[in-house]
Amino acid sequence: MKTALFVLLDQYADWEGAYLMSLLNQRDNWQVKTASNLPQVESIGGIQTTVDLNLSKIDQMYHLLVLIGGNSWNIHSKELYAIIEQQLSHDLPVAAICGAVDYLALHGFLEGYRHTGNARFLWKDFPNYQTPGNFIERQAVSDRNLVTANGTAALDFTEFALQLIGDSLIEAKREVDLYRLGFYGYREKYGNPFV
Amino acid sequence: MKTALFVLLDQYADWEGAYLMSLLNQRDNWQVKTASNLPQVESIGGIQTTVDLNLSKIDQMYHLLVLIGGNSWNIHSKELYAIIEQQLSHDLPVAAICGAVDYLALHGFLEGYRHTGNARFLWKDFPNYQTPGNFIERQAVSDRNLVTANGTAALDFTEFALQLIGDSLIEAKREVDLYRLGFYGYREKYGNPFV
Repeated sequence: MKTALFVLLDQYADWEGAYLMSLLNQRDNWQVKTASNLPQVESIGGIQTTVDLNLSKIDQMYHLLVLIGGNSWNIHSKELYAIIEQQLSHDLPVAAICGAVDYLALHGFLEGYRHTGNARFLWKDFPNYQTPGNFIERQAVSDRNLVTANGTAALDFTEFALQLIGDSLIEAKREVDLYRLGFYGYREKYGNPFV
Repeated sequence: MKTALFVLLDQYADWEGAYLMSLLNQRDNWQVKTASNLPQVESIGGIQTTVDLNLSKIDQMYHLLVLIGGNSWNIHSKELYAIIEQQLSHDLPVAAICGAVDYLALHGFLEGYRHTGNARFLWKDFPNYQTPGNFIERQAVSDRNLVTANGTAALDFTEFALQLIGDSLIEAKREVDLYRLGFYGYREKYGNPFV
């Protein structure tokens, strides 16, 4: 069984991880776990969420680490820093979206990676963000073991994260196309997904 | 303050309500409340959710009642039936997606409404579903006070629900287009949304 750890801080963005966590948690060989610095957090949409793990208790690496955006990524947390640092330095998959990418930029984690995010001008005074030339103006960017995306890119983020964990380009695109094109558009392109 | 009540049963679909609840809960004059038949439910994606209200405690109507799909809509609940019946019979806004529309079909709530849903053949043996000719093969359908959608239509569902509560066609489309087109597509069409 493989585990994807989703970091959900208070005021996390409901829509950013919704597709990815649902698709993964329905697979036979994957499970989703949630983690935060608090036992309970509330999403932007008002979902009272009890997380599975406290960040301070995490001492392992994961098959996929997902950092979901929201309004609390100005967080100061040695535990969170260490989790991300360990995962990235071992070349293990990390997917970060929206405010979570701001955190990566602030702490120098984007150095050496082609990346995107909400907007690079937000990071102009970050001393550890030295490579604005590696910022690509696309909805989502994948470079080696790191996927980054802006906050309007839930589906592209999902597609790239699925590719990051080993799905083929075609399979990941097809799986996400069900939601991107919708049932009728998907059926026209690929045939009925439910028969 | 207006309230949107989101019914979330166990194994609810994370992505179906994520956009709508986030957009509403960020408005100054709206709040989102969640309700279920259980105090705590888990989403398909693995979000441990503590709801705000038990269905048995609800004795009022809402500015918007949202029924989110998932795997538990074979529910037998007099309370839930009564909440939906009261809201619809008073011509108040109801938005239902995916499995929740199956429930509406089973209980005769779709009669008299043009509607859609996951697939009308699922309802062929429902004695209280008498109007398959009113099923429209579109991602989402709005007819008077009822919006229905299939489970791949989170964005169209959101757009129609926003229109249902009084947003103009243009405003609702524009708000949803940020996620439908993504930041770069939106910027090209409308200008930068964040300046």
